[in-house]
Amino acid sequence: MRTSPELQEMHARIDKDISRHISRTRRLLRQPSSSQQDLGVQECAELVAKMYEEVGCDKVEIVKTKGNPIVYGECKGDSDRTLLGYFMYDTMPFNEPGWEHPAMGAKIVDKDLTAGKVKALVNRGADNTKGPLAAFLNSVEACNKSVGRPPVDLVLVAEGEEELGSPNLPAYVKKDKKRLSKADACYFPYFSQDSDGKAKFCLGVKGVVYFELKSSGKSWGRGPQEFAIHSGQKAWVDSPTWRLIDALGTLTEDNGNKILVEGFYDKVAPPSKEDEELIAKLAERFDPRAYKAVMKVKRFTLPEDHPEALIKHYVFGTTLNIDGIWGGYTEKGSKTVLPHEATCKIDIRLVPNQEKDEMMPLVRKHLDSHGYQDIEMKEIDTGYDCCRASVKEPVVQSMLASYRAFGHDPEIWPTSGGAVPFYVFNKTLGLPFTMGCIGHSGLAHSPNEYMVVEGNKRVAGLAEAEKFMVHFMHGFGHSG
Amino acid sequence: MRTSPELQEMHARIDKDISRHISRTRRLLRQPSSSQQDLGVQECAELVAKMYEEVGCDKVEIVKTKGNPIVYGECKGDSDRTLLGYFMYDTMPFNEPGWEHPAMGAKIVDKDLTAGKVKALVNRGADNTKGPLAAFLNSVEACNKSVGRPPVDLVLVAEGEEELGSPNLPAYVKKDKKRLSKADACYFPYFSQDSDGKAKFCLGVKGVVYFELKSSGKSWGRGPQEFAIHSGQKAWVDSPTWRLIDALGTLTEDNGNKILVEGFYDKVAPPSKEDEELIAKLAERFDPRAYKAVMKVKRFTLPEDHPEALIKHYVFGTTLNIDGIWGGYTEKGSKTVLPHEATCKIDIRLVPNQEKDEMMPLVRKHLDSHGYQDIEMKEIDTGYDCCRASVKEPVVQSMLASYRAFGHDPEIWPTSGGAVPFYVFNKTLGLPFTMGCIGHSGLAHSPNEYMVVEGNKRVAGLAEAEKFMVHFMHGFGHSG
Repeated sequence: MRTSPELQEMHARIDKDISRHISRTRRLLRQPSSSQQDLGVQECAELVAKMYEEVGCDKVEIVKTKGNPIVYGECKGDSDRTLLGYFMYDTMPFNEPGWEHPAMGAKIVDKDLTAGKVKALVNRGADNTKGPLAAFLNSVEACNKSVGRPPVDLVLVAEGEEELGSPNLPAYVKKDKKRLSKADACYFPYFSQDSDGKAKFCLGVKGVVYFELKSSGKSWGRGPQEFAIHSGQKAWVDSPTWRLIDALGTLTEDNGNKILVEGFYDKVAPPSKEDEELIAKLAERFDPRAYKAVMKVKRFTLPEDHPEALIKHYVFGTTLNIDGIWGGYTEKGSKTVLPHEATCKIDIRLVPNQEKDEMMPLVRKHLDSHGYQDIEMKEIDTGYDCCRASVKEPVVQSMLASYRAFGHDPEIWPTSGGAVPFYVFNKTLGLPFTMGCIGHSGLAHSPNEYMVVEGNKRVAGLAEAEKFMVHFMHGFGHSG
Repeated sequence: MRTSPELQEMHARIDKDISRHISRTRRLLRQPSSSQQDLGVQECAELVAKMYEEVGCDKVEIVKTKGNPIVYGECKGDSDRTLLGYFMYDTMPFNEPGWEHPAMGAKIVDKDLTAGKVKALVNRGADNTKGPLAAFLNSVEACNKSVGRPPVDLVLVAEGEEELGSPNLPAYVKKDKKRLSKADACYFPYFSQDSDGKAKFCLGVKGVVYFELKSSGKSWGRGPQEFAIHSGQKAWVDSPTWRLIDALGTLTEDNGNKILVEGFYDKVAPPSKEDEELIAKLAERFDPRAYKAVMKVKRFTLPEDHPEALIKHYVFGTTLNIDGIWGGYTEKGSKTVLPHEATCKIDIRLVPNQEKDEMMPLVRKHLDSHGYQDIEMKEIDTGYDCCRASVKEPVVQSMLASYRAFGHDPEIWPTSGGAVPFYVFNKTLGLPFTMGCIGHSGLAHSPNEYMVVEGNKRVAGLAEAEKFMVHFMHGFGHSG
């Protein structure tokens, strides 16, 4: 890699401090911050603020919102350009079964990737996304401790409600617009190598909408009204649970793969010519093994021998997923009851040009027109619109240059499957954005979530990831 | 009521001892005995055995089975006839929300029935069926303490696995056939007045089958195999939950009211001429208010202005009910996951001449022929066949005579909606059976289950129920 002496100094500092950097990462991960359960979130905000200070930020504020606070920070850098770092310090819950190591233990274990042996840190949030946040803060510290300041002006925004759908982020960004507007671009750190070491770069993210559907005797006027009754009564009392099954059955067919909600696909934009080209390139190099290995999935919805169609489905497919369903007696044994209600959680993933605020009304209209006016619908989070950046944006070009500098020719994906509220910064501040970094992590939202801390020749460890971030900041600060 | 002096003596004893009888009832109810959760069951068996001794049984044994023990007892009576009392000392779980008084508190509270004010004992098992068991034991004690012995020879069989589908009762009855065979008939005590005071008498019971259906990535070979993954992957990974919804959708239509399983209705026998007559009589007197009041149901599946059709549906309707359903994320908030499995519990109620051992195979065959070979099916309890007695049986005639002696002209129902394993005694020992008693209780399997202990002019309290039992034993012992 050709680097400036300054960059070399910053990189050397990372090597020197890496065990302290790992400690900081573990410290941040060990602090619970499950926003769904309101567990440790305030404490985590305070810890992030403390870490902003530790790594050398000039200004640190815990900004109150109607929900969990935003941790705001500034760090003067060596450039006229300003990068807005967007982070989340909250995580998913971590009380599901299946953890082989304590979910808050930050244990470092040996792990066999398809790219070979590595040391990985297992903890909720390691992948999504307190691991990358810690790496970024470490990289800022390395800049401050070596050459005195980072290669670019930094504005840091860490929110604590991303897993709730960022309900208070739009209002915050509007309110703090003046300070945030000095940014030229937005960056979201994320380890983007797969289990095989291949780097994957996403130009955008899908949107998401999350709600519950509930069938109840009370709103239906049929079936048990207030509690589960003896199931011998089923012969003359209706079942709200069967009603939910029937209602869900009208929403999709083919095991959920074809959505029947009227108008659901109407606004979906066909892939552009550029998108088609990107997908053709992706298809050439597509190796499904790494994806399937991480998710422990045997096969995809579409055949792997037509990778273009499969990838197009992943990237441009809008989905209506059941995240959870429950009702009646769910414990051991044979309690015979006719339940009075049944509920399910649903998320919709949005692609261009679907709009988040239009999706729940479409489902509502569908249910109504199929005679299910009584099925209650409740918004669980406010949702995100999808958002994309052009490959020509300077910040995207800097990101791609860093990948190349570290020996990677990243796969360029039009969008990722996950959702991040870039749309807020894009819409309100007009900022282009980018996401990524070398490094590997996985099992977001699942047990045994992990990040690689000590990599090998194919997969970057924490030190290399931090060096990448410094390189990217340097490139963005000094290019163009 | 015209009674013999002996009967008067026994009845007088009940009045004298009623507060002790209420105490015994509360003592039995307060002892947890949830067989589904294996909670307090052994202790309850020991308590029942102790109570057999207390009330004057000559022989008491706790008989081991492969599961929970049978509490066996004998009491020599004043007749050549022998009555087999069948009881269950286990109950449903009682940890559901909605209890206004502690589920194991045996609290006596004021209650407004449509028949007026009463005092009711609130506890799991008060209705189903430790309340009636306690009443029966109290009535036996009153006989022993007054005239020295009950009016009929008694053989008592209390099982602790009825709520598990009585898996070990058939083997026990076969093994103990010699002792049990001396019985002339079987009796199951049950408070049969409704909330309005109207007595209801059932000639039989439906059968029941209970199983789970599970859709999983593992058995399907599609979708997440081992754990829930990020729902962003839905665009190219299948959903076992949607598959379960689709599979369930093939089983029924019309909110579960029409069963589509091939062959499901094939063996259903049409009501006999006698049944049609019984139903016509029931329809003349049918008042849906009392039923709806107890269940807190607003309307039935069929219109109330055609009571014959509605009653026929209740009595002769076979059902396929969802008792519970669960999968994925079911807590607060918006965890976005694609779950790897979803499960539901189903019970089928059987009418003549459906056979319990044929129902699961029919569902299996249906699922297979619709392409759902991967949906797993697991028997949760062994089930009961339905069972009926002729109105001409002496034991049934004695029961009806007691109702009339206590001023009731009971509604005669061909079957009840609930299931009791009479078929075991009927099949193995050839015994006719009857069930019933005056008194009122309700909310079996629901929170706030109760039994009336102090009644009013229309609804019998505990003392009157016990007097009824003594009268019934006397009638059966000395008639014909």
